[in-house]
Amino acid sequence: MARGENGAVRVALLGCGTVGTEVVRLITDQAADLTARVGTPVELVGVAVRRPHRHPWLTENFPHLVTTDAGALVARDDVDVVVEVIGGIEPVRGWLLEALKAGKSVVTANKALLAEDGPALAEAADASGADLYYEAAVAGAIPLLRPLRESLAGDRITRVAGIVNGTSNFILSAMASDGTSYADALEEATRLGYAEADPSADVDGYDAASKAAILATLAFHTRITASDVHREGMRGVSSADVAAARRLGCTIKLLAICERVTDERPDGTAAASVSARVYPAMVPDAHPLARVDGAFNAVFVEAEAAGQLMFYGQGAGGAPTASAVLGDLVAVARNRVGGGRGPRESAYASLPVRPIGDVPTRYHVDLEVADREGVLAAIAGEFARQGVSIAAVRQTGGVNGSVDRSDGSGLSPARLTVVTHSAREAALSATVAALADLDHVIGVVGVLRVEGLGRAVSALGMGE
Amino acid sequence: MARGENGAVRVALLGCGTVGTEVVRLITDQAADLTARVGTPVELVGVAVRRPHRHPWLTENFPHLVTTDAGALVARDDVDVVVEVIGGIEPVRGWLLEALKAGKSVVTANKALLAEDGPALAEAADASGADLYYEAAVAGAIPLLRPLRESLAGDRITRVAGIVNGTSNFILSAMASDGTSYADALEEATRLGYAEADPSADVDGYDAASKAAILATLAFHTRITASDVHREGMRGVSSADVAAARRLGCTIKLLAICERVTDERPDGTAAASVSARVYPAMVPDAHPLARVDGAFNAVFVEAEAAGQLMFYGQGAGGAPTASAVLGDLVAVARNRVGGGRGPRESAYASLPVRPIGDVPTRYHVDLEVADREGVLAAIAGEFARQGVSIAAVRQTGGVNGSVDRSDGSGLSPARLTVVTHSAREAALSATVAALADLDHVIGVVGVLRVEGLGRAVSALGMGE
Repeated sequence: MARGENGAVRVALLGCGTVGTEVVRLITDQAADLTARVGTPVELVGVAVRRPHRHPWLTENFPHLVTTDAGALVARDDVDVVVEVIGGIEPVRGWLLEALKAGKSVVTANKALLAEDGPALAEAADASGADLYYEAAVAGAIPLLRPLRESLAGDRITRVAGIVNGTSNFILSAMASDGTSYADALEEATRLGYAEADPSADVDGYDAASKAAILATLAFHTRITASDVHREGMRGVSSADVAAARRLGCTIKLLAICERVTDERPDGTAAASVSARVYPAMVPDAHPLARVDGAFNAVFVEAEAAGQLMFYGQGAGGAPTASAVLGDLVAVARNRVGGGRGPRESAYASLPVRPIGDVPTRYHVDLEVADREGVLAAIAGEFARQGVSIAAVRQTGGVNGSVDRSDGSGLSPARLTVVTHSAREAALSATVAALADLDHVIGVVGVLRVEGLGRAVSALGMGE
Repeated sequence: MARGENGAVRVALLGCGTVGTEVVRLITDQAADLTARVGTPVELVGVAVRRPHRHPWLTENFPHLVTTDAGALVARDDVDVVVEVIGGIEPVRGWLLEALKAGKSVVTANKALLAEDGPALAEAADASGADLYYEAAVAGAIPLLRPLRESLAGDRITRVAGIVNGTSNFILSAMASDGTSYADALEEATRLGYAEADPSADVDGYDAASKAAILATLAFHTRITASDVHREGMRGVSSADVAAARRLGCTIKLLAICERVTDERPDGTAAASVSARVYPAMVPDAHPLARVDGAFNAVFVEAEAAGQLMFYGQGAGGAPTASAVLGDLVAVARNRVGGGRGPRESAYASLPVRPIGDVPTRYHVDLEVADREGVLAAIAGEFARQGVSIAAVRQTGGVNGSVDRSDGSGLSPARLTVVTHSAREAALSATVAALADLDHVIGVVGVLRVEGLGRAVSALGMGE
């Protein structure tokens, strides 16, 4: 609990990119406010960057703070709190573990590290009594982790689901609004700075999966890592999928879904498990998530007593993310002054992870089929054989339809769209494999999940 | 920091109505979870109710806990935390002050008491080092106060605005959806249990004003009491107003609006002040608040770095409110165990309250006018004289219109609707008074504010 001579809480900042720059700006511009809110000054004592020449604003205005040796900065005796906005696993992990072991509190926005090795950080914090805060790691400025781990700490959370990656949402919004192709929308996102040169973290769902792991860990008091999260990216979403969604009255979103699932055991007791998954899915247009456009994030939380809650705001960007970092910084600084501690890791429930094969959802299956008698019966039979119940079927093209092509086989192809009732992923996959082998089926054009997302939809007059 | 022999945190509950019953249920049903989350058991040691015979569930299941002497319960040595869900100022104020002075932490849902005398409670808590938490006082289950006083503690909040009274929103939703009159909608709300026998707290805006005071206090680090909040109820909203709003593409909502307003002084420095107000206003249908129906609450928060955030959920009801109470209970119990404290009162900014006359908004003014030459010029002149800029005018009825009546004066009346640009309330009031005196004006039929609510609307393609 040592602090500076004037009682200041002394902060080391690791990284000074878009977010770090805003952190420096907020700490310095709001010095008087922060002092009043914390009860003592909050003082920046060092900023570690790899290549100082890339940070002219920092090196001009705060030359005395700049260092290239992050490890040495973390180890300094006059550092009370380490704020990390570099990202990535190594070498950051070592620095944060060192800081926590030395009793220094850590504020980090590092979703990848938390999702891979959060328990090690939490244990180091618990061992020394230091604080570990990371509101900025999920959904940028939106206060989401503090509500989950504090406001809802007396309730049972059953679901956390939403849009937590702004880049993929920007791309999907562009595809939905003007029929842009995935490639063109990605190019636009890159041009505007939303997507990185290598967009994999965003479009392949790694970023969202890390966030899902963090959310599920907090919501269900169970350690969930990124590798526990079923992950499907959005590269495969085509303009045809977007159009098919629109015909259904839906919009495709890349969703992160964390659920507490309870099964009745044969003996009447209940077995709970956790499902955490990320994939593109159709969302009914009537659901508020369907209207979350561009780089915004929105997350629904359901709890037994609280019912359904929604949180909405900017999920990324320098200033919004810095706002979340500063909120955490004020909290850990207040704890330094008051001698308290933030909530520790809560992982007592240790629920098992449910395999994706056992997770039920509705599906939209697009088939190209031969337009001849018996095709529907054959296909419906295949669904029935796997125990997948069909909610709706629609045929377009063929003799009376609009598809105008032929493969020379003498059969005119038609398009058959099937929407299922809730089915387990394993059963649906088996159905799709069997359909592909049917004589009547020319090809399985697309398979997408349809997520009703529970009560919000019911409230809007649509059953799940 | 004394606790029970098993280390339990011992809780006294004051009140056991709809919310209290759910609090008892959650504490008992979730005992194992709460123990794991707090690190020690949370034990209910007494429940004070005025008339035990009205609480058969409580007296049958927990006869040993029931007492009619709340004061004695609060004073017991074996009470660590007092949870209050009775409501009202007296006699609750005395009990809570006694508890805090004795170092017992308080969790309360009492918006009226907090809005009237929050500083006295905060001072008592600070003096003894006890915690004072009240998430349930505003917007039921929605985590809103914790985000304001913790998550955004490193940012500058500029606005908190939304729907914080479910009863009035239920009535307004019913009026908007099927043209129900205010009286019929109120009757329905009473029948369903949303409105009390005396609906004044809800429909006259007292409840929303208390909540606005609490929100403004936290958001702007300034003591704001209910008497600082400009309050207009919704009894005066007619079916004609609802129809007029619809013609404008708007919906009428009872809003609580808290803003930090900054004026440039002549010498170039800036003077900040706080505006807190409650009134019915037209909200553009494109704004998410227009779609918040029934008993739900939704609140927008704007901060300089975070941008715009939205929180949505159930604003009332036993279980949702109890969820918020339990979240606070876990927090104060953790603090008991860990030796820490929640955030203290933060009122260092002490900003002045801006009089309602100086608050600019847009207005919708409905006039019945004589349909003769020069009427528009005369009316427009009156607006110009008071410096109120007109954004749009629409005339219906009269010679070419649809109003089919005459007052025998030889003049056929017409309806003139004026929407202004942003104007100060004082200027608008003076305009309305002057208009009423004009020969051409038969009557001022309705005056309602139009709230664009800032960036959310801009984002949706509508200027403020």
